[in-house]
Amino acid sequence: MHNVQFWGETLRLLVELAATAAFALSGIMEGARKRLDAVGVCVVGFLTAFGGGTLRDLLLDQRPFFWVRHVEMLWGVLALCVLAMLFLRVRHFALTEKAIQWPDALGLGLFAATGVHQALLLELPALVAVLMGLITGVFGGVLRDVVCNEIPTAFHDHRPYAVCAFVGGWVYVGLWQMDAPGWLALVACVAVTAGLRALALWRNWQLPAWRH
Amino acid sequence: MHNVQFWGETLRLLVELAATAAFALSGIMEGARKRLDAVGVCVVGFLTAFGGGTLRDLLLDQRPFFWVRHVEMLWGVLALCVLAMLFLRVRHFALTEKAIQWPDALGLGLFAATGVHQALLLELPALVAVLMGLITGVFGGVLRDVVCNEIPTAFHDHRPYAVCAFVGGWVYVGLWQMDAPGWLALVACVAVTAGLRALALWRNWQLPAWRH
Amino acid sequence: MHNVQFWGETLRLLVELAATAAFALSGIMEGARKRLDAVGVCVVGFLTAFGGGTLRDLLLDQRPFFWVRHVEMLWGVLALCVLAMLFLRVRHFALTEKAIQWPDALGLGLFAATGVHQALLLELPALVAVLMGLITGVFGGVLRDVVCNEIPTAFHDHRPYAVCAFVGGWVYVGLWQMDAPGWLALVACVAVTAGLRALALWRNWQLPAWRH
Repeated sequence: MHNVQFWGETLRLLVELAATAAFALSGIMEGARKRLDAVGVCVVGFLTAFGGGTLRDLLLDQRPFFWVRHVEMLWGVLALCVLAMLFLRVRHFALTEKAIQWPDALGLGLFAATGVHQALLLELPALVAVLMGLITGVFGGVLRDVVCNEIPTAFHDHRPYAVCAFVGGWVYVGLWQMDAPGWLALVACVAVTAGLRALALWRNWQLPAWRH
Repeated sequence: MHNVQFWGETLRLLVELAATAAFALSGIMEGARKRLDAVGVCVVGFLTAFGGGTLRDLLLDQRPFFWVRHVEMLWGVLALCVLAMLFLRVRHFALTEKAIQWPDALGLGLFAATGVHQALLLELPALVAVLMGLITGVFGGVLRDVVCNEIPTAFHDHRPYAVCAFVGGWVYVGLWQMDAPGWLALVACVAVTAGLRALALWRNWQLPAWRH
Repeated sequence: MHNVQFWGETLRLLVELAATAAFALSGIMEGARKRLDAVGVCVVGFLTAFGGGTLRDLLLDQRPFFWVRHVEMLWGVLALCVLAMLFLRVRHFALTEKAIQWPDALGLGLFAATGVHQALLLELPALVAVLMGLITGVFGGVLRDVVCNEIPTAFHDHRPYAVCAFVGGWVYVGLWQMDAPGWLALVACVAVTAGLRALALWRNWQLPAWRH
């Protein structure tokens, strides 16, 4: 039993690290595309990696922030920024973007689950909890795009992204209300979110646009 | 007496609902104009409707947020987004914009009053209270424009908007300091703000621009 | 001894006032350049002057905000906005920009020091403290540029700015951990930050850009 829990925790940590790196990389590449200087690239990397979770903690009034409790994640992202600036070239971008799609989708599910979980612990209503999950998963990317002076990709590229986290969030809430064990709700939320995202990318689903 | 209070409360609630709907609609239409997808339109609608009040609660350290206490407002705006996407067409925009001018002006006054009121309850200085009212009334629209990659309308269209809330806020502070009853301060603040806004639109007042 | 402390406090206050005015002026000029109306120019001035410190206080959960404790700073910036709109013309901008470079550099150092100091008082890790200093010094300008629909200057003009505050912040942390007196850490942080900034401007240092 303890063994299962240990492996569960380890797996969760691995997904979290991979997802944080994926988010940071998407920020770094966006910064590079916009021809920011070294400082700008780093800041956008940090904003993308930690922005969503920080906004969640701000809204839920949770201190210390998760990156204060795990300051090694800050060092990790700083190292990643430096390494990326040394070794990542523009010709690697397309490849990197393909490579980070999976950790990004898993991270979207995991971050949504942590947001929903924290809000449910504070006994917030179900819809609020799901929105907190959404914010945790999506607003890192939104801040990245706002700072880079773009309309957020999540809002106009017509590929389902936030919607996957929205559905996954409701799965988490449903299992929580049925008193399912925590690991099951977590796994189900991640699986549904990442699965939907994978399906959407594979089948090229399009979100409805405004009808004119 | 109780009857008066009941009708007062009901009227206040009606204005609040109408104003929230008006704010959400202005976000939805801005999102549609920017050709966002369904998710983007909803998010911008939510940001516009709840952004100002949320920022006020964040700055004043008030929890739970007003939309956590009134979660039915979240459901209402969600329903409004879906209905708008189903039934609102671009050819209706001009008409809708005209129709929401009045609830928007009333809402500006009401939201400014709630911001001023909360700040005064916390015994903050008068100028801070007025600024909180301004933020509550105006920053929903500012966030809408920032996310849609525009310079905020409130800052460059030269039509008095924030200024009306600023004046209305001082009216509220003045009456509060004269120990006037709460409903009087509220009504006066809303009347002055919305009245000034209406006058400004009717007489086509222009804010001074920078002189070059 | 008391005399020294008194003069130290007075000097600190003078630098803080000069820096706040410099930050506000940079916001006012950016707003004027973007042809905002009177309200927009004022709001951008306020955002630039108080945005960084407010974000620091929000993240560190410090209330009341520094501009609530020193409400006369709000009045001062308001007066500055009005005076600037009356007397500052576009032909004065280049001169003003040159004139505010020094208070701006000193302010960057001072604000960074206050951010680091507050975070260390809360026993946050060193890297977090340095980032708080950076945020305090730099995010006023970032908010100014985001609201004016520009990519933040601090992120893409290739002139060291945030980096100076980053180094200065580490100096503060180092002296703090060696139990140096507070005024020494403050002076050293300001001197290193402003000195580096001055050197960078003088020698025309360039931050590395992304290599393509």
